[in-house]
Amino acid sequence: MTAGSNPLRGGIEAGGTKFVLVTGTPDQKIVARHSIPTTSPAETLARAADWFRQQEPVAAIGIASFGPVDINPASPTWGHIQQTPKSDWSNCDLAGFFAQQFGVPIGFDTDVNAAAIAEAQNQPADTCLAYVTIGTGIGGGVVVNGAPIHGAAHPEMGHIYPRRPQNDRNFGGICPYHGDCLEGLASGPAIFARWGANLSDLPTDHDARGIIAEYLAQLCHMIFATLSAHRVVLGGGVMQTPGLLELVRAQAARLDGDYLPGRAQHHICRPVHGDNAGAIGALLLAEKALDQALNV
Amino acid sequence: MTAGSNPLRGGIEAGGTKFVLVTGTPDQKIVARHSIPTTSPAETLARAADWFRQQEPVAAIGIASFGPVDINPASPTWGHIQQTPKSDWSNCDLAGFFAQQFGVPIGFDTDVNAAAIAEAQNQPADTCLAYVTIGTGIGGGVVVNGAPIHGAAHPEMGHIYPRRPQNDRNFGGICPYHGDCLEGLASGPAIFARWGANLSDLPTDHDARGIIAEYLAQLCHMIFATLSAHRVVLGGGVMQTPGLLELVRAQAARLDGDYLPGRAQHHICRPVHGDNAGAIGALLLAEKALDQALNV
Repeated sequence: MTAGSNPLRGGIEAGGTKFVLVTGTPDQKIVARHSIPTTSPAETLARAADWFRQQEPVAAIGIASFGPVDINPASPTWGHIQQTPKSDWSNCDLAGFFAQQFGVPIGFDTDVNAAAIAEAQNQPADTCLAYVTIGTGIGGGVVVNGAPIHGAAHPEMGHIYPRRPQNDRNFGGICPYHGDCLEGLASGPAIFARWGANLSDLPTDHDARGIIAEYLAQLCHMIFATLSAHRVVLGGGVMQTPGLLELVRAQAARLDGDYLPGRAQHHICRPVHGDNAGAIGALLLAEKALDQALNV
Repeated sequence: MTAGSNPLRGGIEAGGTKFVLVTGTPDQKIVARHSIPTTSPAETLARAADWFRQQEPVAAIGIASFGPVDINPASPTWGHIQQTPKSDWSNCDLAGFFAQQFGVPIGFDTDVNAAAIAEAQNQPADTCLAYVTIGTGIGGGVVVNGAPIHGAAHPEMGHIYPRRPQNDRNFGGICPYHGDCLEGLASGPAIFARWGANLSDLPTDHDARGIIAEYLAQLCHMIFATLSAHRVVLGGGVMQTPGLLELVRAQAARLDGDYLPGRAQHHICRPVHGDNAGAIGALLLAEKALDQALNV
């Protein structure tokens, strides 16, 4: 039995906090799912490999990784994590490790590009869809006609500079590169840095909700204006805050100023795949890698 | 001799101030070029048609139009201008007029998408390139792997909200939809509204230059962050101001904060095709329409 004839595919959502491991069918039905904490690269990768060895064999593995990563197939460091504040992980050859362990084709992209692919597959009428995660960091991926935009590296839309509302002018932001860029202002750690709690643990009438909604609404408006995106999907831990999505929609509608009525209300959405958007995207990356390997 | 065998193609850059009319070869060498002022639709279109009748016959015509326009091929109003402050032109069926007059395939897109296609063709290593015009309005187009992003309608990146520098806080902006969006702050009319002159006519030490450069640098940074674009090409009348491009690059480098050193300096550029980017893009639209017609 060759690898190509194995009925299952493997998916890895490699996050800064945890790795989500799945096996799934060629049409991305999840068969088994397991989550391990992100510790050192050696330990985390060994545990991931152990788990896959306990499952049915897979024909390919897709990896949806936190960034920055090298996703240029022509590069000698394709499939590596690049310089990251999680310094143990800098230069880690994720794709090479799993290729060597399992001898199967490896698909590789950013976690948010993978999630965007998974969400776009569910919205066949959307020729342009953005997926943004708001959690430990803020990152976004864009799919145009089914394929993610890579560009020179990959999008880093957490680093745009939103306007500062009157009641949030004094906080300098926590981004080591940009200070008060979006990630420096509205990520989970940025929220914790100035209010000492997660957004969902603050009182519902706390100013923080309106402030964070305003920043995220500016991101949505920017994505609509720049890409004419059909849909902006917002995922990640911060978006679990009850009522936040509705506040973002209302603020984005105000920013749109009746330019395209209803766009903010109906086209800023939660992920259809919920917490599994990245993992299902990883299975799609595996499928694509398998197709490419079999067509060579 | 069928239309498909004519050696020339027609191109129209339909602007709010003037129409640029060209004929060109299948590899976009301009053979004849003529410019007419944009007056009423009836007069302008009749003069454009007259000019084309005096040239060698063309096998197809590409139209690169000011917006908003309907560029959805499946729409019954494909090829029409939509609601615009230039109210005579609202609902004008540009594509239908030239199809009816000349009986040849018609290509149709926004002026900035067409210019982006033309510039991207010259940069084969760029998988993602943005073209932005800063003139009567501010608009941008994005080409990914050779094709423009259309999305739900087409990008309207003039309507992002840049941060307001300390020395430009009091001007409310002139955008009828958004007030102080980028177009409301940094377009030619916005510059004229608060300083009573074109940017190039103000003294070189006038604050206006730094202010406008700061807004345009924010746009460039936003495009790099959102799309990981290889290149941002800046065209349009305002960009003719001596020294402005260099100021934009310097400010964008500051905003990048060493995140990707050299990106702003080397990847914010003037159009390779200069004033002809839109017209050459229109010839490319003609070529594509001809290919599609011949392959049906």
